[in-house]
Amino acid sequence: MVKVVFTDIDGVWTDGGMYYDGTDNELKKFHTYDSAGVLLCRMLDIPVVVLTRENTKIVARRCAKLKMEHVYQGVLDKLSAATKICTELGIDLKDAAYIGDDVPDLQLLGAVGYSGAPANAPAYVKARVMHVTEKRGGEGAFREFVEVMLGPERMAELVMRWAKEA
Amino acid sequence: MVKVVFTDIDGVWTDGGMYYDGTDNELKKFHTYDSAGVLLCRMLDIPVVVLTRENTKIVARRCAKLKMEHVYQGVLDKLSAATKICTELGIDLKDAAYIGDDVPDLQLLGAVGYSGAPANAPAYVKARVMHVTEKRGGEGAFREFVEVMLGPERMAELVMRWAKEA
Amino acid sequence: MVKVVFTDIDGVWTDGGMYYDGTDNELKKFHTYDSAGVLLCRMLDIPVVVLTRENTKIVARRCAKLKMEHVYQGVLDKLSAATKICTELGIDLKDAAYIGDDVPDLQLLGAVGYSGAPANAPAYVKARVMHVTEKRGGEGAFREFVEVMLGPERMAELVMRWAKEA
Amino acid sequence: MVKVVFTDIDGVWTDGGMYYDGTDNELKKFHTYDSAGVLLCRMLDIPVVVLTRENTKIVARRCAKLKMEHVYQGVLDKLSAATKICTELGIDLKDAAYIGDDVPDLQLLGAVGYSGAPANAPAYVKARVMHVTEKRGGEGAFREFVEVMLGPERMAELVMRWAKEA
Repeated sequence: MVKVVFTDIDGVWTDGGMYYDGTDNELKKFHTYDSAGVLLCRMLDIPVVVLTRENTKIVARRCAKLKMEHVYQGVLDKLSAATKICTELGIDLKDAAYIGDDVPDLQLLGAVGYSGAPANAPAYVKARVMHVTEKRGGEGAFREFVEVMLGPERMAELVMRWAKEA
Repeated sequence: MVKVVFTDIDGVWTDGGMYYDGTDNELKKFHTYDSAGVLLCRMLDIPVVVLTRENTKIVARRCAKLKMEHVYQGVLDKLSAATKICTELGIDLKDAAYIGDDVPDLQLLGAVGYSGAPANAPAYVKARVMHVTEKRGGEGAFREFVEVMLGPERMAELVMRWAKEA
Repeated sequence: MVKVVFTDIDGVWTDGGMYYDGTDNELKKFHTYDSAGVLLCRMLDIPVVVLTRENTKIVARRCAKLKMEHVYQGVLDKLSAATKICTELGIDLKDAAYIGDDVPDLQLLGAVGYSGAPANAPAYVKARVMHVTEKRGGEGAFREFVEVMLGPERMAELVMRWAKEA
Repeated sequence: MVKVVFTDIDGVWTDGGMYYDGTDNELKKFHTYDSAGVLLCRMLDIPVVVLTRENTKIVARRCAKLKMEHVYQGVLDKLSAATKICTELGIDLKDAAYIGDDVPDLQLLGAVGYSGAPANAPAYVKARVMHVTEKRGGEGAFREFVEVMLGPERMAELVMRWAKEA
């Protein structure tokens, strides 16, 4: 069973779009459905860990909004980072899941027990993961990855619990 | 006949997208077609009531632009909120309509007389509403929900009246 | 032959999206392809006239960028406005074209010699125009409307002339 | 073999969208996948040269982010500009590639050894290039153009090298 979920941001939590303006500002478009991916994991005490090469206040703010504890930005070597984090958490990499969408994600995707990529990822990335989401990045791909990972029975139970708490 | 229409915002009036920037700003993308949903209800003196968990100036501005009176943000328990509002308006919940797109909407969706969800909602939400709109959230799903609710005859009459007033 | 082209903005030059933020700012997304619609008309000395109910600096800036002379915002009665403009230009309404996408556009759409609506318009609007563009609003629908209006022969000649001038 | 790659921006690196707001600001939406097109060329010492008619800080910032040296904005005559740049680089135009999406790109598209246009380009542009990308502008069309240009064997080798360096 998966004990920790790692996730990339650009192209997974977003459609890969980077909005630049005429000042020094930048925007990313997240999707509210992915917040449910974080929530579902929290209901099961499964930590969600962000690993991204970019380093922006945008991602920091989004993760703060979702009350996430584990946010690693500017990570060039994701396999090393995830290995170190797993050691700290006392979890084997084989009990970790990871969803990423591009070449810098391949090493970690090949090392975890459960791997995924969104529908929009390059074919040579999708060919090397266990689950390709029907959703594209930025449309709830992370939530779908979590839901498929948890399976229909646990999902049915969690949805009932969530609906009552809401 | 429906006497009040409740509506969620994120994922219904928007595609679920939340644009974050490098400052503390955020954007939501609304669609001009949904403003017609509000207008059509107004032509029939049917109040439209916004119920959303989020609490942003963005939604306040959009609703002010559409001259909406009933805007409830930061609502965690939508069923309780709608019940209270219906009591104040002297309307039975069975004469209310609601369109929402996610698990926190399920209780209210199950309690109203007419329920809907946009095309993009999770399957387990769509399975529990009366009308799934062809439009996705943010593309005019709310307008479609209102138009289908009013039915073709009343719509034909309203469009004629609206075209003359325009 | 068409001597003046009237055009709506929201839902035609845009996909109907209105981006609101947490300050008093708003954004609209235009498409560079529509600028070619203005350019093609200019090459033939056909004025392009903007008629929109909204009244924003956004549209003023976009039209200024395209060096447009005829920009009318805050227009509630488009048929009256277009009639007056045609009188000033010495052009018969029957020699005018108009593309719009919603109920407030119906009267003018029914009065001009050549009418259009984008693919995304409501069915009851599309049913009452001569040309429904394949493109959706905000994807170059205005350009397509102009190109179809000019016809393949004139377009072939204009593209050749434009390619040389570029 | 291609020794230099020229690229247009609007409609190629973006979907043609130009976001205007109520101040003097503007936004363009780039895609992280296109950054890989620049990276792949850099791994092979193939310069990537931006040629665009527009002249914005937005494009300057995006190219700076990607550490690009060759960025030409406000270019009205792309064929002349590319010819001059090729002379400076000591490269024949026949060993250059270019991807563009509209009429002002046609002359250069007809002069280079390898030409492309994104899926969204007008039919009369797509008819005159060697490769029409499956991707639309702003969805990674530039990256696809570079990948197809390099061919599957070189790509397989580059992906392996990139995955190890990542």
